[in-house]
Order: sequence, then structure tokens, then C-alpha cells
Amino acid sequence: MNTFQSTLESFQKREDALKAREDPFADGIAWVEGEIMPLSQARIPLADQGFLHGDLTYDVPAVWDGRIFRLDDHLDRLEASCHKLRLFLPKPKEEIKQLVLDLISKSGFRDAYVELIVTRGIHSIRTLDMSPAKVEPNLYLFVTPYVWVVPMALHSHGAAAIVTRTVRRIPPGAVDPTVKNLQWGDFNRAILETQDRGAQAPFLTDGDSNLTEGSGFNIFIVKGGVLHTARRGVLEGITRRTVLEIAEDEKIPCHVEDVPMGLVYSADEIFICTTAGGLMPITGLDGQPVADGKVGPITSKFWDAYWALHYDPKLTIDIMYG
Amino acid sequence: MNTFQSTLESFQKREDALKAREDPFADGIAWVEGEIMPLSQARIPLADQGFLHGDLTYDVPAVWDGRIFRLDDHLDRLEASCHKLRLFLPKPKEEIKQLVLDLISKSGFRDAYVELIVTRGIHSIRTLDMSPAKVEPNLYLFVTPYVWVVPMALHSHGAAAIVTRTVRRIPPGAVDPTVKNLQWGDFNRAILETQDRGAQAPFLTDGDSNLTEGSGFNIFIVKGGVLHTARRGVLEGITRRTVLEIAEDEKIPCHVEDVPMGLVYSADEIFICTTAGGLMPITGLDGQPVADGKVGPITSKFWDAYWALHYDPKLTIDIMYG
Repeated sequence: MNTFQSTLESFQKREDALKAREDPFADGIAWVEGEIMPLSQARIPLADQGFLHGDLTYDVPAVWDGRIFRLDDHLDRLEASCHKLRLFLPKPKEEIKQLVLDLISKSGFRDAYVELIVTRGIHSIRTLDMSPAKVEPNLYLFVTPYVWVVPMALHSHGAAAIVTRTVRRIPPGAVDPTVKNLQWGDFNRAILETQDRGAQAPFLTDGDSNLTEGSGFNIFIVKGGVLHTARRGVLEGITRRTVLEIAEDEKIPCHVEDVPMGLVYSADEIFICTTAGGLMPITGLDGQPVADGKVGPITSKFWDAYWALHYDPKLTIDIMYG
Repeated sequence: MNTFQSTLESFQKREDALKAREDPFADGIAWVEGEIMPLSQARIPLADQGFLHGDLTYDVPAVWDGRIFRLDDHLDRLEASCHKLRLFLPKPKEEIKQLVLDLISKSGFRDAYVELIVTRGIHSIRTLDMSPAKVEPNLYLFVTPYVWVVPMALHSHGAAAIVTRTVRRIPPGAVDPTVKNLQWGDFNRAILETQDRGAQAPFLTDGDSNLTEGSGFNIFIVKGGVLHTARRGVLEGITRRTVLEIAEDEKIPCHVEDVPMGLVYSADEIFICTTAGGLMPITGLDGQPVADGKVGPITSKFWDAYWALHYDPKLTIDIMYG
């Protein structure tokens, strides 16, 4: 994290500019049924099955310093998630892409959290007929200022994680975690336990003593110069993919397989990753330091590489602000 | 089901009267933030955590022939569910009760499905501070015509169930099923498989070869004059409770414990139960008849007793229609 100080300072400047804004979109902007409005005024039908039965998928790209990162990858995953649910994108992908770019432009946010939600829409409660011909999916979009799962100021020293004792991850045989979903019952319990135990990030097991993921983030364990991350029972995160690509570039081996908890507790380094905050060093686990309790060299290297990629024209699109 | 014909005929008459209605509330009525509107026009904030992270609980009492059944029990369970989520009812229970009774009265439905939803309301995405002092839960209510999980016309012959092959039930260590929730990812998959396999009701296992429940219903197995229903990994349904009470009155033993799948496939009778349709005989399982494929004597006895209780003044409240 040689670049930590400069990254933090330039972000801070942009955030200060944001704080000065008093316009209606300053806290967030939404797109619902063709209309654009402040997020706080956006409403969806009560009868949408996305609300009434959690029947939806979503995706979250982010904007960093005026560029959106890997938007096409997020849109491809959203489409793939729809197909796994026997849903489909309610509009052509290119049109959704343009809607997203326009909404960000209108938001004025130089750093933004962008959420796209596709629900199964409105059909009568408990109908058994979910055939595609009978379905009219709904699309909801919103953009808020950039979200940090762990506050950026903590990144230089690392955050504290816990392995949750009161809750396990929903298994993939029940709900497929590769279809990004908002059924956060397990994560919500995990967040409460994290708060109780004075930490910042919950790690959930698969109920069989393997590590899965946390509340909206993937987890990487570094041991003996090798990266480990869970293969199964987790979201195939775009940030996770970026980490795997950096590992390939850097010729650092990465094992994507079961991660037994024994490995987690004997890690040299741990970091978590998500679009909402990028890579975050974890330097405490269950109240104990991870190794020497300092941010490790591999975490630092990936942290720097991750943010550098946010200026790579191959992975980013410049937002044209109005 | 000695009373089947008379029950069906009187319901049919009331339903025919409903079909003649053309007023704005004919398809459903909702209460949102103190306002009453047709369900089709009801909208909730996009930023409600009930939508954005499934962070809610709900309950469903029903109205039958102008009387609401076990409303106090449903309200008590809703309150208990809130507490398990570290939430609380946003209004005093008596006030919610009156809102519900008034909304049903205004709906004009003599037979109704009533849904009460309590969400964690609006707070910033990914905040770790979920302490009660920071939370303002939201309440949403709606009333629709009575919902049948299995169409009533099928009750006399029984419906076809499947044991799902593509999905298992979310385990209680991940999401507590005694807190009624709308995270239907597993049930939605199960409903799709049920449709594919030409049946009406999915049965889900716990992933360890025990029976749990279906998409919004509990399951009872009858074997050698004894009832069996799952203890763990299921909603403690009010209709299930009613069945247990009928069993006690009738001195029919009922084992509430693990229900191994071997027992399910060797059942004498099977029925499912839920507020949305009451008791429903299951006479086919995975394409084979259950025993002789006819509605059995114990199912019939419970079916009759269940509907008779809907006229019991101790368990019902007369709706005062305007």
C-alpha cells in the first residue's frame, strides 16, 4: 500500500467536494420505470415479487475517480444470474448500459456505488406458473456515493474480522450464491454478531468447517506466499476475479478450492474484497492479531495493483459528466 | 371431508359475489404509511432494507366467511419474530390489530389473505449499527382475496407433491425458519421444479434426508394412526399448531421430531397445511400414489375439524363490514 496515502488524499478531496453539494441528488439518484428521482423518493410496487418473495438478482459496479470499473463484466454476470433464475434482462444489455452511464452522469458522483436490480416483477402470489412467457421482470437502478464496507481510514492498519459463532452461510444447495441475491438473513445475523463483538467484518463457514464469504465480500487467505480462496458456496465476485488476474500477472499461486478453517487461523495475511471498498486488509481475527497484526506485503501489493487498474482504459469507461 | 361439498359450495357462492365487484379494492387493498390504497397502487421505498437486504419478518392471518382466524396468535408470533431479529413492532399490538380489522372491513372480502410485513426500514447500506435505538421499522399491510396454495377444487381428490431433487431447505443455522421470512430463494427454485414435474406442492429436505417443509406450508405424515411432523428447520405454523391441537382433542398421537424420508415414502396419508388454503390432502408423491392414492380417514377428520374451528368464537373475530 505504497499508494495508500495518495489514494486516500485524492479520494478525500473528492468526498469533500461531494459534501458541499445540496442538490436533490446529493444523497443518491434512482431510475424506476423510466423516471429519474432522488433515491430517497424512489418507490417500488409493494406487490413486486422481488420484495414479496426475494425473487430477484442484482449487481453492483462502482465508479472510481470518474471511471466505471468493469461495467461489461457486471452486466454479463447480471444477465447470467437472470438466466440461472429463469429470468431475463427486461431491456437489451446495451440499453441498460446506457441507462447506467446516463444515471451516473446525472448523479455527478465521481466515486459511486451503482446497484442494478432485476426482479420477477408482479404476478399473483403463489402462482405456480413462472414460465418466462408469463413473466415481466422489473428493473431498478440507483447510484449513491461510493460505499466502503470497511471505512477507508482503517485500510492502512487493517480491520478486525470474526468467524461467526451464531450463524453459518446458506448452502449453495438451498440458494445459489453465484446468483447475487438480497436474501441476507444469514449476513444480517452475522452483521449483528460482528457489532456485538466489536469487529468490522464477519466470516461465515459452510457449516462443515470451511470458510465461505462475508456479508457482501470474498475472502483471501495468504499462507507461505500462496493465496487461497473458497471455490464453493460463495459469490464469484468481480473484485475476486480481479484479484485472481493480478495473482496471475504477478505469478503468485492462488488455490481456488475448499479453505479449511485451520488455514484461516494460521494465515500469514488475510484480506477481503468487494466492489464496495476494494481490497481491505484484515489484521485481527476473533480478537487475536493475524500473524504479526500488520498489513502484509502481499496484501499491499494487491491493494496497489487493484486501485491502479481503476485507471486502466481496458477495464474502465470514462463517465461524461454533464 | 364430510363437509367438503358444503364448504366448497358456500365458498364458491362468496367467490362469485366477489367476481362481480368492480371497485378499486376488488383485487386487494393496502396500508402504507397511514394511507389506504388499492394493492396495485401501493409502493414502498426502494431504500427499505426489507427490499435491499431481505431484512424483515411477516405474518399471514386469514379471513374465512367473515371471521378472522387466530389473529392474536398471528400478532404474537409477528412480535416474537421481530424480537428474534432485534426488531420491534412499529406500533402497539392493539393498534396494529385495529388497523388490520379496519383494512379487512374496508376490503369487503368475506374470505381474505392478510399480510403484515415489518422491515428494518431505511438506514444507510452496509451500516454496522443496527442497534434498536437507530432503527425505525416500517409496517406494510395488505389484504387480498383468499389464497389457495392448492386450488380448493383439488382438495377432494388430493394434490400431487414432489420431493425436490434440485434444492434443499435453507438450514436454521443460516436463516431461522421460525422467523417467518420472504427469503424464498430455495422455495422459488422448488416451485420451478414442481412446475417442471407437473405437481402442485414441493417438499424440501434438510440436506440430511429428513423432511422439512414446502413453499409456505408445513407437512404432516400419517403412519399407523400416528401423525408425524418436523420439529426443526420449519416454520412453527399457526395452522400446524391448530392441527396439533385437533390431534390432542382427538387423542391422536403426534410426534414432533425428525421425519426421515423413509417414513414419508411409506406414509399411509400425507397432508400439508398453511393459512393460505388450510389442510390439503396429498395423494401423489414423486409420481406414485400415496398408499391407495385416496384421501385418507385421518386427513378427512382433520380437514373437517379445521374448517369447523373457523366458526369457533374463541378462535375468531367477526369482521364488522361497513
